[in-house]
Amino acid sequence: MMQIVRPTLLVNEEKSRENIRKMVLRAKEAGVSFRPHMKTHQSNEIGEWFRDEGVDRIAVSSVDMAQYFAKGGWKDITIAFPYNLLEYQTINDLAAEVQLNVLIESKEALDHLNKHVSSPVGYFIKVDIGTHRTGIDPNDTKVIHSILSSSNSRHTLIGLLGHAGHSYQTDMNGKKAKKILNEAVSCFDRVKAETGRTDLVISYGDTPTCSLLDHFPGVNEIRPGNFVFYDLMQYAFRSCQISDISVCMACPVVALHPERGEVVIYGGAVHLSKDFIEVNGKRNYGLIVKMNDSGWETSGDAYLTRLSQEHGIVSASTDLIDSLNVGDVVGVLPIHSCLTADNMGHYYTLSGQHIKMRSKLE
Amino acid sequence: MMQIVRPTLLVNEEKSRENIRKMVLRAKEAGVSFRPHMKTHQSNEIGEWFRDEGVDRIAVSSVDMAQYFAKGGWKDITIAFPYNLLEYQTINDLAAEVQLNVLIESKEALDHLNKHVSSPVGYFIKVDIGTHRTGIDPNDTKVIHSILSSSNSRHTLIGLLGHAGHSYQTDMNGKKAKKILNEAVSCFDRVKAETGRTDLVISYGDTPTCSLLDHFPGVNEIRPGNFVFYDLMQYAFRSCQISDISVCMACPVVALHPERGEVVIYGGAVHLSKDFIEVNGKRNYGLIVKMNDSGWETSGDAYLTRLSQEHGIVSASTDLIDSLNVGDVVGVLPIHSCLTADNMGHYYTLSGQHIKMRSKLE
Repeated sequence: MMQIVRPTLLVNEEKSRENIRKMVLRAKEAGVSFRPHMKTHQSNEIGEWFRDEGVDRIAVSSVDMAQYFAKGGWKDITIAFPYNLLEYQTINDLAAEVQLNVLIESKEALDHLNKHVSSPVGYFIKVDIGTHRTGIDPNDTKVIHSILSSSNSRHTLIGLLGHAGHSYQTDMNGKKAKKILNEAVSCFDRVKAETGRTDLVISYGDTPTCSLLDHFPGVNEIRPGNFVFYDLMQYAFRSCQISDISVCMACPVVALHPERGEVVIYGGAVHLSKDFIEVNGKRNYGLIVKMNDSGWETSGDAYLTRLSQEHGIVSASTDLIDSLNVGDVVGVLPIHSCLTADNMGHYYTLSGQHIKMRSKLE
Repeated sequence: MMQIVRPTLLVNEEKSRENIRKMVLRAKEAGVSFRPHMKTHQSNEIGEWFRDEGVDRIAVSSVDMAQYFAKGGWKDITIAFPYNLLEYQTINDLAAEVQLNVLIESKEALDHLNKHVSSPVGYFIKVDIGTHRTGIDPNDTKVIHSILSSSNSRHTLIGLLGHAGHSYQTDMNGKKAKKILNEAVSCFDRVKAETGRTDLVISYGDTPTCSLLDHFPGVNEIRPGNFVFYDLMQYAFRSCQISDISVCMACPVVALHPERGEVVIYGGAVHLSKDFIEVNGKRNYGLIVKMNDSGWETSGDAYLTRLSQEHGIVSASTDLIDSLNVGDVVGVLPIHSCLTADNMGHYYTLSGQHIKMRSKLE
């Protein structure tokens, strides 16, 4: 294990590759195509782990990210975010090089695309399948037909796309996941019927349902992202086992306070993010694990109850506090690995290999 | 105003300079020295705005940050974070170049400093003045004397330091701020009495009380940080007026959903951070403002009710939705400017000048 002196985001490459392998197999056995979302790791080096499993198409969440992965050799990229017309020039340039798909959820957006982007672009109509974040209301036939009326021959309507963000629930299970999928499919079917097209690709995604289900009837493509690392939130949603989580923040212990049952670590909001889950009405910002020669192992249920910019406060048992010294290193399994990775901007593997991520400043 | 195509963190230089000027004057009139915390902006370019007002000493929250500001010419730096013994080598190198102060809250930490750091370092004993995050219990005479027993002639005990993080309350006012300060001073006095030293520097800080109070009896130095920008959380704590907030995230509008009273913007957790305040039991992740030729102006009370990685969901009135088009740019006053700045990694002034920040990867 490499020497840790400050908060360091470690990735267990073997576990990540196993997570990828499992999802590839799941998609294959279900007969759906697999377009993993790269927003979780944002790294072309980690992208290679997907390529090693035969993945050839990806989803990203911004135009910048599409540019970055195009530089990494990806040729089929869906920007799974509403078409940002202010970035049309970059979209135009990128679509000249790779198969680029964007999301459309209004006639105005499609009209803009038609008028300003000359390179051929594929587009999906974004459908609200129950999350109520983005996407058209599947019952709003007026909006559907207004979008369809703007279709032209330059750009291709590829399909319908939805994100089941409402699967992010602490009481998830296979039965609920199936219900969410079925409701999503009935939303897609309603829109599909209005289009009169039977060939539309139905693209569906989110890590909880894609982890819990083996069959995706009515769906042609799945787009989970978080599963490459998983995290404590996904564990709370029953998407994974604790042992599937493949990232861990190694953090120095900087103070022990047995008098208040707390340990202070160097590892705060700028490292882990302020995302939390609630456990018995208390906030949990990350689970404490024990570092060992082969990475980390779970050990008790101590967790971060507070986070400042650089400090993490662990509520700890007397046993845990007694076992620690200032200058030790503990691990933290993050609540939301996507935000943690984005905060850190790079990784180290357990063998100390540095893994670069997309720079936000490029 | 520069052209915005993606989430862009704007800083109103004039307002920031005015915030700095006011705090410098407040410290001067109160007869306390001023050691602003640079963790909010993390920029040597913005550091120059402080230098222009005569500031010559600073606080930072990590060894990395101390290195960065030392490169920017700062010669008197307090790392306002518990001494991280794993970084002793960097601390040793840095202390050879500048006046470096660290925080000590255990005999073990001081023993390590004495044994491993040969360059002279100043240290403050960190006192818990009511926040219960870090610091020694002021009533724990055993801990106080164990630390004092490890003092040696190489490193200098400069004073006592506390952070009144418990001033981060939505019902703050001048009277409460005074009570928090008085309680802090009585904590400091208890520890001071045990040391038998009358010359110790009492260093106190946090933006709410430093913004609300004009006098700091019993204190020698103040260390606020956030005031350079302020933010919506500080506004909720009565530390500032909305018009004092000097940073704003300019965000493209990517979708309008009048049917659910929402606007979708390109601007999410990776830009703003997941910090929130609660308004009538609902989460507020940022206030929507109107961009204009001279920056931004408040306009109504629409705010971000949900944030995904890249999406922000605004609960908006019909009037606001009707006034917007896809492709417009709205501003977001952040909840917690320190985390927002850290997320973004750079700024632009209103005239389009690029302002660099410390890179987390250095």
